[in-house]
Amino acid sequence: MQQFTTQLTIETPGQGLHEFTMGVERWLGDTGVGQGLLTLFVRHTSCSLLIQENAAPSARRDLERYFSELAPEASHYEHDDEGPDDMPAHLRAALTQTHFSIPVMDGGLALGTWQGIYLFEHRTAPHRRTVACHVMGE
Amino acid sequence: MQQFTTQLTIETPGQGLHEFTMGVERWLGDTGVGQGLLTLFVRHTSCSLLIQENAAPSARRDLERYFSELAPEASHYEHDDEGPDDMPAHLRAALTQTHFSIPVMDGGLALGTWQGIYLFEHRTAPHRRTVACHVMGE
Amino acid sequence: MQQFTTQLTIETPGQGLHEFTMGVERWLGDTGVGQGLLTLFVRHTSCSLLIQENAAPSARRDLERYFSELAPEASHYEHDDEGPDDMPAHLRAALTQTHFSIPVMDGGLALGTWQGIYLFEHRTAPHRRTVACHVMGE
Repeated sequence: MQQFTTQLTIETPGQGLHEFTMGVERWLGDTGVGQGLLTLFVRHTSCSLLIQENAAPSARRDLERYFSELAPEASHYEHDDEGPDDMPAHLRAALTQTHFSIPVMDGGLALGTWQGIYLFEHRTAPHRRTVACHVMGE
Repeated sequence: MQQFTTQLTIETPGQGLHEFTMGVERWLGDTGVGQGLLTLFVRHTSCSLLIQENAAPSARRDLERYFSELAPEASHYEHDDEGPDDMPAHLRAALTQTHFSIPVMDGGLALGTWQGIYLFEHRTAPHRRTVACHVMGE
Repeated sequence: MQQFTTQLTIETPGQGLHEFTMGVERWLGDTGVGQGLLTLFVRHTSCSLLIQENAAPSARRDLERYFSELAPEASHYEHDDEGPDDMPAHLRAALTQTHFSIPVMDGGLALGTWQGIYLFEHRTAPHRRTVACHVMGE
């Protein structure tokens, strides 16, 4: 049994879902682990992770729209010193995921056919995001 | 330290919470792992996982009702080519869980007395769902 | 490769976010694991876990307010025999997290600078909560 860690950097152009499945798979391939457990953990509280449909771009647009309505930019937040998009970013992050653990089976991630791994950027401006990665197995 | 993987198949009759704690515990028992970490990962984006109260059926009905109101079937989704229940299914999945990791301690899952593991089906029609399972320990 | 388990007890004074990052770090330090994977799992369905901003108390107050509006105490729940704060507690728990896995790298948790680990108490009365902890690594 072996383990490996790394950090992936993801440059986001602004709000929205940004797929990084390939970056994860490339790193997993480099480690040589074919059976085990892979964990991704985003080191920020104003963006998050989501595993979602990777086929229809319209489904992702609906998703982005939904979360911007569910936790809207509004004037009634007490915490507003980092801009009007900051507090809704924390709320949208709280409603989605900070981390994922995905089994590694038969030499690869046990993702379903239509599942992609996304960084969900909630801030308006471009950001440089870090995802801590860990895999354990053989 | 050893690891085991499997896939559980869950046939859902339609929308709602379907408990499968026993299926997980049976497989864990077969592996013989008494201390470790068990991970469940659902390989779909229109159903999800939830750990919830396993005592009162009324609490589960309230939960199902709540999510169907929070992410309703509606006419304003752009992505509707797979039916009116598809886009809300993705939204309800995004708001709940794709995976769980549960410590194994003292020979069993570290679930609380009232916690059950549920597959939360968000589509109207019956579906055959796959959950990838991984356990590592001794 | 080694593994350790424990249970942390957290006494909550009532609704709100209660940080326990230091308790987790103290236990991790005791185990001596410097590279690995740490998992926290809360053994209840009316409180939850959240990783959030640990700098601004105003952000936490906004978060608490947001969830109490998103899943409000109301009169229309079918499940109300444990009090009016019980069913919204289950809903807020379903919308946030039951567990977290955090990579351990360079001798510590791979948390970002502004990330703290919180127990999110959803019940009004003080409660004694148990978090099952597991770490695997070397």
